[in-house]
Amino acid sequence: MNGRLVIIGIGPGSAGLITPDAHAALATATDVIGYGPYLNRIAIGVHQTRHASDNREEIERGRHALALCESGRAVAVVSSGDAGVFAMASAVFEAIETGPETWRTLNVSVIPGISAMLAVSAKLGAPLGHDFCAISLSDNLKPWSLVCHRLRLAAQAGFVMALYNARSRARPDRLGEAFDILRSELPSDTLVVFATAISRPEERVEISTLADADQTLADMRTLVLIGSAETRRIRGTSFLYTPRSVPA
Amino acid sequence: MNGRLVIIGIGPGSAGLITPDAHAALATATDVIGYGPYLNRIAIGVHQTRHASDNREEIERGRHALALCESGRAVAVVSSGDAGVFAMASAVFEAIETGPETWRTLNVSVIPGISAMLAVSAKLGAPLGHDFCAISLSDNLKPWSLVCHRLRLAAQAGFVMALYNARSRARPDRLGEAFDILRSELPSDTLVVFATAISRPEERVEISTLADADQTLADMRTLVLIGSAETRRIRGTSFLYTPRSVPA
Repeated sequence: MNGRLVIIGIGPGSAGLITPDAHAALATATDVIGYGPYLNRIAIGVHQTRHASDNREEIERGRHALALCESGRAVAVVSSGDAGVFAMASAVFEAIETGPETWRTLNVSVIPGISAMLAVSAKLGAPLGHDFCAISLSDNLKPWSLVCHRLRLAAQAGFVMALYNARSRARPDRLGEAFDILRSELPSDTLVVFATAISRPEERVEISTLADADQTLADMRTLVLIGSAETRRIRGTSFLYTPRSVPA
Repeated sequence: MNGRLVIIGIGPGSAGLITPDAHAALATATDVIGYGPYLNRIAIGVHQTRHASDNREEIERGRHALALCESGRAVAVVSSGDAGVFAMASAVFEAIETGPETWRTLNVSVIPGISAMLAVSAKLGAPLGHDFCAISLSDNLKPWSLVCHRLRLAAQAGFVMALYNARSRARPDRLGEAFDILRSELPSDTLVVFATAISRPEERVEISTLADADQTLADMRTLVLIGSAETRRIRGTSFLYTPRSVPA
């Protein structure tokens, strides 16, 4: 009964962005659990049991991990990016809170990872250089009206926005609706970035404006960044950044 | 004239959270520039020139780095956490935009790092598990009225908040003013976390509520997290998390 559970962020894709702590935790796991394509990014030894899942049913995956841990296994739950940003960590803790009392005494920890928004920001220059927010556009787990409310207030606050779960086959038009809301709050020349599969071989970046932003540039691997009034491109370069200062 | 400049995030402190890409970029630098205590965290070879600075004058440090790069040196600019989050990347790009035209053709890149908020979130459980924002409380580079405006809107939006530059000797009372603003918008039992020097030997975490939050628990190494209405502690554990779902 010396089980343990580590929830690990393995970064956006490139091996060069996986931390030593993540590698160390993976190396000592008996069981590795995660969405299949994420597991394909890491080396899993022959002595380790691989539990590949689809990318839904996160709380069920959390319960499965906790049950294995309770039975004495050393379990690693793998998330892309950072495990705490719209990923598995929250699902595991929800499973603990709603599960049997014994799960509260299990040895559980989280290892942070390079989140998609940080990788995208570094790729572009420094668009997250000043105040920003991260919003999931998925309305699977919250009402769409709340997403709209948050987009409006984030625009009024002048935050740069990182939009996660921006578009999927099940929600093909929500991103377009989000752009419409933002068009009513922000100037039409506000920068919009579609960053897909950053740090992976199929990486793609498209830079647009709110006037021209086309939701079909996004798929389920795309992080969408919305600039603030201060976010700008540096003429003669490919760089985009948000200055640290805002004039009075 | 084959200079290059890499802006590198070295994470919150622990060597286990420095990425292989950061190590690789550091290893090939001829010159390493950064705030002295950050440079002390990394190995700098005898063949490398160390340029330690204080933690102010970021744009001057950026210009210094760019001038070295232009002269043909391989320059690494080091930031704690992620270089793009309230750190050196934005300062370097501002220096490029406002500097000589030739700087726009230099070979400049950014390597992301584990930001303080991600490390703090992992340490606590998953408080950033749903929509959140990051706000710098420093009014050195923006009007304090804008900070207050953003705090109010972030509270109304229901974001979890990561407050950077929460308190310094030069601004001992701004954090208390921020708590007062948040008290007028949020329930008094809203969770407040003071996370100091996370992942370093002197690491300290204090969990409070908005009613009881005491600004003197913060110093310049402290990230302050404000929970949303959904953020909770799991009874019988040390964990704090924000569920992925918000009820209709």
